[in-house]
Amino acid sequence: MDPREKHPGKLFVLSGPSGAGKGTICRKLLEETEKLELSVSMTTRSPRHGEVEGISYFFTEKEEFEEHIRCGNLLEHAQVYGNYYGTPKAPVLKKLAAGIDVILEIDMQGALKVKESYPDGVFIFILPPSMSELRKRLTGRGTETAEAIELRLGETLKELSYIEKYDYCVVNGVLEEAVARVKAIVVAEHSKVAFTAEELIASYKEEA
Amino acid sequence: MDPREKHPGKLFVLSGPSGAGKGTICRKLLEETEKLELSVSMTTRSPRHGEVEGISYFFTEKEEFEEHIRCGNLLEHAQVYGNYYGTPKAPVLKKLAAGIDVILEIDMQGALKVKESYPDGVFIFILPPSMSELRKRLTGRGTETAEAIELRLGETLKELSYIEKYDYCVVNGVLEEAVARVKAIVVAEHSKVAFTAEELIASYKEEA
Repeated sequence: MDPREKHPGKLFVLSGPSGAGKGTICRKLLEETEKLELSVSMTTRSPRHGEVEGISYFFTEKEEFEEHIRCGNLLEHAQVYGNYYGTPKAPVLKKLAAGIDVILEIDMQGALKVKESYPDGVFIFILPPSMSELRKRLTGRGTETAEAIELRLGETLKELSYIEKYDYCVVNGVLEEAVARVKAIVVAEHSKVAFTAEELIASYKEEA
Repeated sequence: MDPREKHPGKLFVLSGPSGAGKGTICRKLLEETEKLELSVSMTTRSPRHGEVEGISYFFTEKEEFEEHIRCGNLLEHAQVYGNYYGTPKAPVLKKLAAGIDVILEIDMQGALKVKESYPDGVFIFILPPSMSELRKRLTGRGTETAEAIELRLGETLKELSYIEKYDYCVVNGVLEEAVARVKAIVVAEHSKVAFTAEELIASYKEEA
């Protein structure tokens, strides 16, 4: 057996400004990578048509969600338009223990909270190739006013000052290149001495 | 221009026990990777037939070599059978500044010296999949006695206790997989926030 297979999984947190393309990168990664699964969020909002419990979200009541907060069962949580959203810790830890990597796509505020509750995570910041390209992408979506887009761009500049909290940053100019970079990060993290050496050494010594 | 291209190269130090296959991995990497060059050693031994100055080695006299030691011009050096061998610092730094990654294949003692003189290097330990496989590979070479091979295996076990000094370890069971892992490490290292973020942020702010 390859000694690496004995090792548990890693949590990869993908974050970055809206329009950087973290969602697309995430989907591609999940399609193309073995032993990598998406973290499923918990929410108090009602299920929409087609959403499946445990796959789209874990749907729950407000009281139960607040109980999870009190018990420290969430890696992070936030309230948006009166609904709670959060990342339940137990399903993530269960996958990691089973040797499955977990990917979590989340905004910067959420990512920084996850870093506090799970500092062993690998934090990756996804960036657009330039501010003008980001403006173009946001405009292209056609879902926001010019004013809202300028607000988002200002927000992005502010977020950049937190980039030092992350381990890696990946510029998403050409999608395939960005996906390849994130994949390389996943492979490299599994080769880190701090992550893998202890069991490796034990296996050699046992054999000798 | 991709902002990443403005960044200088990185020094990758490949090390590990004899028979782990670091030489083969190194050759493959150089063949398959752009902007990656091998570090050329300096030596006081005489050129052998077919060896080319500046490609095989930088050939030099004992007095000149000792002057380089005194002036701190070498990243590491050692004496083997009366001849000096060392890694000149200037050609490595020149390549790094030109945005070329440099790979240095070296034994563990040399690697640890390089880590002192150039801690920004990325230190990768190449391991055989098992002690029995290492014994098989060394025996297969047919160049050493059974006794010498057992000595080497004992040496390997001792070297393992220094593995924590390295950043990464890569098990060389299937050559292509090991090469892919080292390539992933090269890509990931270039995406590290500590390495790339400062200039990236500057480019966004300038544009905004």
